[in-house]
Amino acid sequence: MTTRITCVCPGKPILRDRAEMVLALAAAEFPLVDLRFHPQCFLEQGHFAGDDMQRLAAFVAVANDSEVDAVWFAMGGYGSNRIAAPALAQLGEAARDKTYLGYSDAGTLLGALYRHGLGQPVHGPLAGDIRRDGGDDAVRRVLRYLSGQPVALEAGLDGRPTVAFNLMTLAMLVGTELMPDLTGHVVLLEEVAEHLYAVDRLFFHVTQHLGTVAGIRLGRVSDVPENDRPFGMTEEEIARYWCQRSGIAYLGRADIGHDAANALVPFGVAPAPLQA
Amino acid sequence: MTTRITCVCPGKPILRDRAEMVLALAAAEFPLVDLRFHPQCFLEQGHFAGDDMQRLAAFVAVANDSEVDAVWFAMGGYGSNRIAAPALAQLGEAARDKTYLGYSDAGTLLGALYRHGLGQPVHGPLAGDIRRDGGDDAVRRVLRYLSGQPVALEAGLDGRPTVAFNLMTLAMLVGTELMPDLTGHVVLLEEVAEHLYAVDRLFFHVTQHLGTVAGIRLGRVSDVPENDRPFGMTEEEIARYWCQRSGIAYLGRADIGHDAANALVPFGVAPAPLQA
Repeated sequence: MTTRITCVCPGKPILRDRAEMVLALAAAEFPLVDLRFHPQCFLEQGHFAGDDMQRLAAFVAVANDSEVDAVWFAMGGYGSNRIAAPALAQLGEAARDKTYLGYSDAGTLLGALYRHGLGQPVHGPLAGDIRRDGGDDAVRRVLRYLSGQPVALEAGLDGRPTVAFNLMTLAMLVGTELMPDLTGHVVLLEEVAEHLYAVDRLFFHVTQHLGTVAGIRLGRVSDVPENDRPFGMTEEEIARYWCQRSGIAYLGRADIGHDAANALVPFGVAPAPLQA
Repeated sequence: MTTRITCVCPGKPILRDRAEMVLALAAAEFPLVDLRFHPQCFLEQGHFAGDDMQRLAAFVAVANDSEVDAVWFAMGGYGSNRIAAPALAQLGEAARDKTYLGYSDAGTLLGALYRHGLGQPVHGPLAGDIRRDGGDDAVRRVLRYLSGQPVALEAGLDGRPTVAFNLMTLAMLVGTELMPDLTGHVVLLEEVAEHLYAVDRLFFHVTQHLGTVAGIRLGRVSDVPENDRPFGMTEEEIARYWCQRSGIAYLGRADIGHDAANALVPFGVAPAPLQA
């Protein structure tokens, strides 16, 4: 039974040679996967993979296509928040029976879909992650998951409903019309390329908005820029500090981040893990 | 009648030679101003001007000192949000009859004070702005204002209640226990050293939280880092776009920013402007 997966880019475009590497890997190793990149993935309009209307139209068309089993976000960057609200308003029945997979900026769409109970949002590698060291394995992990093969999920999932977000993406989502109710959820957070003072500031903001969650787990905080002086706390000390101040349980580390090891986290309660 | 002004640093420290330049200017030109820097201003603890307890204690002591007429935030940086909630809980009667002046990160404290109706928060230059081209005039503007001399306020104040914030600072404040009710207010926003895609993202977030304001005016967006490609919209197009999407009136530009021209904006309804 063939699994049809179509990539779209709600933020920035993917380079064509990277898309071709992903297609080649899928063709060589996943004969039962029909993987496609929507032409919108290669458009360029300023910062974005096409203008808002083009990105919106591509996402809506693929989500509403009953022959597509999974929408795979090929790149992050920035831009999902500009199309999420109008996109949600245009999704039909076919959009419900579908998996949506990606992370980073695409987390805005995953969160908005989760808010509306539409399909199965999953935090996991982007197609564009093939460029990373170990990126082949990141892509294999996604293709195994989406085609129903045994594959490891994030190792700490414990039966409680769980979500995973980039910290900045979630900080911009809280309190907006796109934000899902995370009461009782374990929230996994990762960050990249932000100063530790900015990570501290973001934790202040999100913990103020997440008072009803079951707890927070901290993924990797990578590529922290050099500052003119040390911040004075590690990222884990920052997470513990704001969790304690806001009465949120700090539940330890998580295996997510802007890297090839970035683990799969189905939003909600994941089924009992399959053995890879 | 002498005006007593005391500087504190709720975020990062001020360099001693800059404080001395400010003191020298005040001594030479403002004989009726008694300007002091609390010793906390020169402490260093990682990123901060002393640890949280030291910054908190200095701010509370100065705010609660009935002999102090104005608290002047000497530097921004980052850190006000770590001390604002415990500080507010410790302020007494003497803290009410006082002006609090600064901007950027210090806007967190100005916002929290405004929420609680404590004193007169004012957006305006920091003591540390003396380092800028034209910084002497920025300092003179503050000392004139705080000592009751005629001085120009931001030119667009129109009798409606008004506040001014750094965009990132306000984005981290919205929805938190420190956020004032800005219903019916004109909100002036400025930003520095953020990519335009980040400015766009921040406007998405704040406009989602500011649905009841009277409108937004855009200050300067300066020192925008070079990105790998152009964003495709100017900062004013970004502001107009998100105001339109969220039904907020866009009211034009504002004379605020991370520069020496950064104008004075008393929170609330400013008295009829004095002629400088």
